[in-house]
Amino acid sequence: MPQPEGSTPAERLAAAFGWSDGELAVGGVSLTTLAERHGTPLYVYDAERMRESYRALSEAVAGFAGIYYSIKANPNPAVARVFVGEGAGIEIASAAEYIAARAAGATPERILFAGPGKRPDELAYVIEHGIGEIHLECAEEIARVAAIGAALGRPVSVAVRINPSAAAQGGAMRMGGKPSPFGFDEEELETVIDTVTAQPALRLTGIHLFAGTQILDADVLAGQWLHGLRLAARAARHLGRPLETIDLGGGLGIPYFSSETALDLARLKERVGDLVAVVRDEPLIRDAAIVIEPGRFLVGPAGLYVAQVLASKVSRGTRFLVLDGGMHHHLAASGNLGQVIKRDYPIVAATPRGRETALCTVVGPLCTPLDTLARQAALPDCQAGELIAILQSGAYGLTASPVGFLSHPTPAEVMVDGGKVTEIRPRGSFDVPMALPGMGAGTGR
Amino acid sequence: MPQPEGSTPAERLAAAFGWSDGELAVGGVSLTTLAERHGTPLYVYDAERMRESYRALSEAVAGFAGIYYSIKANPNPAVARVFVGEGAGIEIASAAEYIAARAAGATPERILFAGPGKRPDELAYVIEHGIGEIHLECAEEIARVAAIGAALGRPVSVAVRINPSAAAQGGAMRMGGKPSPFGFDEEELETVIDTVTAQPALRLTGIHLFAGTQILDADVLAGQWLHGLRLAARAARHLGRPLETIDLGGGLGIPYFSSETALDLARLKERVGDLVAVVRDEPLIRDAAIVIEPGRFLVGPAGLYVAQVLASKVSRGTRFLVLDGGMHHHLAASGNLGQVIKRDYPIVAATPRGRETALCTVVGPLCTPLDTLARQAALPDCQAGELIAILQSGAYGLTASPVGFLSHPTPAEVMVDGGKVTEIRPRGSFDVPMALPGMGAGTGR
Repeated sequence: MPQPEGSTPAERLAAAFGWSDGELAVGGVSLTTLAERHGTPLYVYDAERMRESYRALSEAVAGFAGIYYSIKANPNPAVARVFVGEGAGIEIASAAEYIAARAAGATPERILFAGPGKRPDELAYVIEHGIGEIHLECAEEIARVAAIGAALGRPVSVAVRINPSAAAQGGAMRMGGKPSPFGFDEEELETVIDTVTAQPALRLTGIHLFAGTQILDADVLAGQWLHGLRLAARAARHLGRPLETIDLGGGLGIPYFSSETALDLARLKERVGDLVAVVRDEPLIRDAAIVIEPGRFLVGPAGLYVAQVLASKVSRGTRFLVLDGGMHHHLAASGNLGQVIKRDYPIVAATPRGRETALCTVVGPLCTPLDTLARQAALPDCQAGELIAILQSGAYGLTASPVGFLSHPTPAEVMVDGGKVTEIRPRGSFDVPMALPGMGAGTGR
Repeated sequence: MPQPEGSTPAERLAAAFGWSDGELAVGGVSLTTLAERHGTPLYVYDAERMRESYRALSEAVAGFAGIYYSIKANPNPAVARVFVGEGAGIEIASAAEYIAARAAGATPERILFAGPGKRPDELAYVIEHGIGEIHLECAEEIARVAAIGAALGRPVSVAVRINPSAAAQGGAMRMGGKPSPFGFDEEELETVIDTVTAQPALRLTGIHLFAGTQILDADVLAGQWLHGLRLAARAARHLGRPLETIDLGGGLGIPYFSSETALDLARLKERVGDLVAVVRDEPLIRDAAIVIEPGRFLVGPAGLYVAQVLASKVSRGTRFLVLDGGMHHHLAASGNLGQVIKRDYPIVAATPRGRETALCTVVGPLCTPLDTLARQAALPDCQAGELIAILQSGAYGLTASPVGFLSHPTPAEVMVDGGKVTEIRPRGSFDVPMALPGMGAGTGR
């Protein structure tokens, strides 16, 4: 018998948004109402759930680290504004993300710029407009930032990004221990510090270490952070002065697949206690501002992708639901964003109404077998016109998807905040990153 | 010793574009010149090579089938216009593709509309503006098209898309023989024909069969086409009258990886001879207009994605080139567009100048390990500022990529036609499919 909180694991996960008269609702507003007002497909974000994630994490790392929102996870300024309102800084990876961060209300000194391939024009743009810290990742970048700083007569605060020598265990993608295009190998730490400090226009304030992504094990995360603290102390000793900043990266995961369980914040808090003791014992990092930069963890669970059933059909014994939304808006849900586990994202009918479920395949409208959103979805017998919601869709959704693929209209994005609904991107629009002044031909030559 | 035509397989493939003073050139214009004028990253298309592909295929299927360009492969109207100029019709999969086809000069009767999830508003739009044929793929669609045709008092020409019972062998993705969201199972052919012909507003003109994609074996392709002809004859017998159209689908592949060889058009032409005999022997399909709908085959080899080296670095013994372009513009080259073989696309330095090559890893600027364009690229020791070109990039390139991912500016697209260069999409712009009038809330209910 269906339970009130939902009869499938996905329905139980969806229950965190709440139900209204047997319909899935966000901030008390049913998805049917949102779809009628804003059309389908549709992205829906719950501001309250974003704040809940932020506050829970903030509490777990209290007294140890501050939080910078990794805006690449969802660069809609309205989303970033929720976190800025909670006190977050912003971690950016392009000039247009800088512009989005500023639009969200972040002050320049609360913005960090990381990424393996920053163009000279981007660097010039953010330095000119003010930036908290730039994370240097290659020799060319040291020279470029130094040249821009010198030309503007303005010292630039920089950190050195380190590619750690030991892999973090447990993340879906491991970034450490192997050859990597990100940052400098740990083995070269001292040499790189010397190169940076030799540049009068650079002010070396910190180090940055990022060893994994989608990490669901608190001990793995804490182990990675401990490695970062040790590296920071080593860097400070070589520098002969205290560090001002230590960026321990992001990588905090959320559960997508039935085999995964959520990161245990209580356990993380315990481990953070040990890390605080490590920091206190090391005078050269004791006063550093420690930063973590989650994205997915903060915004992923707060977002839903909602699409409408166009057809329900049976082919050779398999039931298919054909939706009006698909991989062009939600590449990750189709398993084509590099996932080790391809799918299924948790998926529910917006109006389960306690109906019996059966397994079916859920596809989008694109004329390609790639546009498959679920192969083993437990859903009721939905008919054309009904709404389907994909959960855990707040991060790496619309902007990580091939929106032009087969030229369907882009979906609206709406934010629900305690019953108040705001359309934060209209249907049929997309923020195309523009060329910055001076960008283009000849840059980097 | 490097040969004049190039020392690596990719360089030899690039030689089809031609070299100018040791630099890769398109229509006689060097990539350096194009990059200086239009910035990097950059998509470059060679109109002459598109025409060559079209004419070679057209010659191979002469007397058997006409060609409809599958515009999803590259929906830039300037690209489609090249094929329309050669006499091609256009196969579309969305209303915005209809608009692009019309912008390219296609007349309504030379446009076919296929796809598993056509929205009611899209159907109404194309029926109102005129369309050659709509390919019906589910029961809901039969009812929708019939209702729209009846409301407009205009009979709509339709074909029935069939999901074949035997898989085509040899394509990278097989669409036949299994449960499928595309079209109707072959087993139900007669029932579906009866359902369609029962609708007075529908005029059943043909059948459509599409069983695979990226097929490189001429015999596999011809075998699939033969199956289509037999199905067409069966459909016509049940109808009791000749068919007007037979759409045999696309699926013609191009070689991406070193293990692949190009489709043998001479062999295809031989097999087409046999097929022509089959058609002549069957009165009920003898006068049908047979259509094939390639996309990738026509435009893929004619396109290059050009990016600039931002950094050259060595990490733990591996050489990395970091480019200013990556998966956000060319998802398929990063191996994240569902490929069985993930990579490497053929990749060359724009200025090989006979230099020695060594294996390296090529990455884009995004702050994720997914943004890897090649793991074993044989390239000279390129430095910052040099240009790298990814070949076979004319199809499923920019519009099949997550252009908003990390918010970098979109690249310009330029068309070179015998030395004449036209910017067919400016840098920092993107054709966002707009919502059509009447689209949105409540559609399909």
